[in-house]
Amino acid sequence: MKATRITQLFNIQYPIIQGGMIWVSGYKLAAAVSNAGGLGLIGAGSMYPDVFREHVQKCKKATNKPFGVNIPMLYPNVEELMQIVIDEGVKIVFTSAGNPKTWTSKLKANGIIVVHVVSSVKFALKAQDAGVDAVVAEGFEAGGHNGREETTTLTLIPMVKKVIQIPLIAAGGIATGESMLAMRILGADGVQLGSRFVASEESSAHDNFKKIITEIGDGSTYLTLREFAPVRLIKNKFFIELMELYAQGADKEALKEKLGRARAKLGMFEGDMDEGELEIGQVAGLIDTVKPVAQIFADLVQEYQEAQSKILNY
Amino acid sequence: MKATRITQLFNIQYPIIQGGMIWVSGYKLAAAVSNAGGLGLIGAGSMYPDVFREHVQKCKKATNKPFGVNIPMLYPNVEELMQIVIDEGVKIVFTSAGNPKTWTSKLKANGIIVVHVVSSVKFALKAQDAGVDAVVAEGFEAGGHNGREETTTLTLIPMVKKVIQIPLIAAGGIATGESMLAMRILGADGVQLGSRFVASEESSAHDNFKKIITEIGDGSTYLTLREFAPVRLIKNKFFIELMELYAQGADKEALKEKLGRARAKLGMFEGDMDEGELEIGQVAGLIDTVKPVAQIFADLVQEYQEAQSKILNY
Repeated sequence: MKATRITQLFNIQYPIIQGGMIWVSGYKLAAAVSNAGGLGLIGAGSMYPDVFREHVQKCKKATNKPFGVNIPMLYPNVEELMQIVIDEGVKIVFTSAGNPKTWTSKLKANGIIVVHVVSSVKFALKAQDAGVDAVVAEGFEAGGHNGREETTTLTLIPMVKKVIQIPLIAAGGIATGESMLAMRILGADGVQLGSRFVASEESSAHDNFKKIITEIGDGSTYLTLREFAPVRLIKNKFFIELMELYAQGADKEALKEKLGRARAKLGMFEGDMDEGELEIGQVAGLIDTVKPVAQIFADLVQEYQEAQSKILNY
Repeated sequence: MKATRITQLFNIQYPIIQGGMIWVSGYKLAAAVSNAGGLGLIGAGSMYPDVFREHVQKCKKATNKPFGVNIPMLYPNVEELMQIVIDEGVKIVFTSAGNPKTWTSKLKANGIIVVHVVSSVKFALKAQDAGVDAVVAEGFEAGGHNGREETTTLTLIPMVKKVIQIPLIAAGGIATGESMLAMRILGADGVQLGSRFVASEESSAHDNFKKIITEIGDGSTYLTLREFAPVRLIKNKFFIELMELYAQGADKEALKEKLGRARAKLGMFEGDMDEGELEIGQVAGLIDTVKPVAQIFADLVQEYQEAQSKILNY
């Protein structure tokens, strides 16, 4: 696996980024990924500011390699989080769910590398114009919150590649070395994996959630709540009840009431597989085992190199 | 581009199949694709039996290379179509939209190669059990009618590959040599392209429809009518009016009335870009020009080989 604009930008060995997901991406996962040669991200989206600061401080102790954080800009305490980033000397910030103009120049003025997550060509261009260092383009198959246009990774990556000049990270549907290589062919300089790292030993996902990821197949997730913020969930008891509400023609209020609060924590972190909101990507259907991060990296590299060596026979 | 199980199965030069789409895939397109070294398919789904017979007869005159037909098994005159296939000595049949058990053994008893189109692992296994010679696995990004589970090509292909032994054709989101190579890496033995061939000189799509395909970008199509048979359409005037009905909470009857009859013909064949139903894949966003089929093949082969030669630098 050769150097790319992404390995150079972050000064890492492999162009593999671990998505900074809610409830599963604490310092243990981020540090393990960075120690394995990728880029680990602490997911700030589910952390109070003091918890976030603690994770950043612990991550600095757990790895001397580059790591970063993911901050959804719609987060209520976003200013506090950004101040922590600056105070603690975090070098890499991935922003999502908001306007990249809001924070990019301030962060860059503090010497921070900024990457923005997008799901369309239009927002990729906006991010580039805002001065970010790279974009993550994430397709419809990704877990959790997702774009409204529902463009899949296979079609989104070459369309974004065609119009941007800055480095491009592909996300959504990637969990193997083969799909990493496929993304390189489509023009990505690196990849971001989410689901694969949820089912790692170091993620803070509840064991029940990790187990279910290894058991489900294709068709086990669905993008729902499209009227609010579209989100891809496992079709568990809660999801089926939500579908029943839709079938009854429930209004937005009724849907919001059903959704309630803290269901993602309940499912993904506390392990309630019936009542929780279980955010995972379609690619979970390819994930059969919970593995240590180091093993995930060893397997990705091996699969990638094997796929690469076969290609001249194609 | 080396031989694969798909080039061997059909005795063709390139593992490239042209989807047998409604209103755009007459004998002219099918013969042009077969003459260029791929496998052309006549799309029976929009043809009365006598029209279908005429296209088969003309295709036999227009090419001495292998060609096939696509027959949606929910078609009301399916028995008549199958009899024409047998009478006219058609050697290759792609079936879709129905149970592969119904026709596979009768067709195979007549020496016909049978391929079935699926959108899930479960139906791929059912097709293999029914004795088909290969399956097309088609992802969510594909144009026209589509699976309910919404699994994307990037995740569907490796999941199907993992469980079937027969040859696998990838479809949905593929229009370039790079994406062809990506699909080979994910385990496909060949690819089926739809949208790319709609925007060919030889397709029977109306020029207005071809033009719009070259103009649209990402986010210009959407999978709708999910309660009936999910279908991916361009967001034109008709589509927007349909969305307004949904927003008003319209019931199934009202939606059906709005849909009416023959809207696909009106748009795709007769060129009414406002009132017609315009079925195309997300990958239309990558298609900028209407080209002759021979040029499409030349470009695909060149892109494929260039991508292949770059891969050892990755």
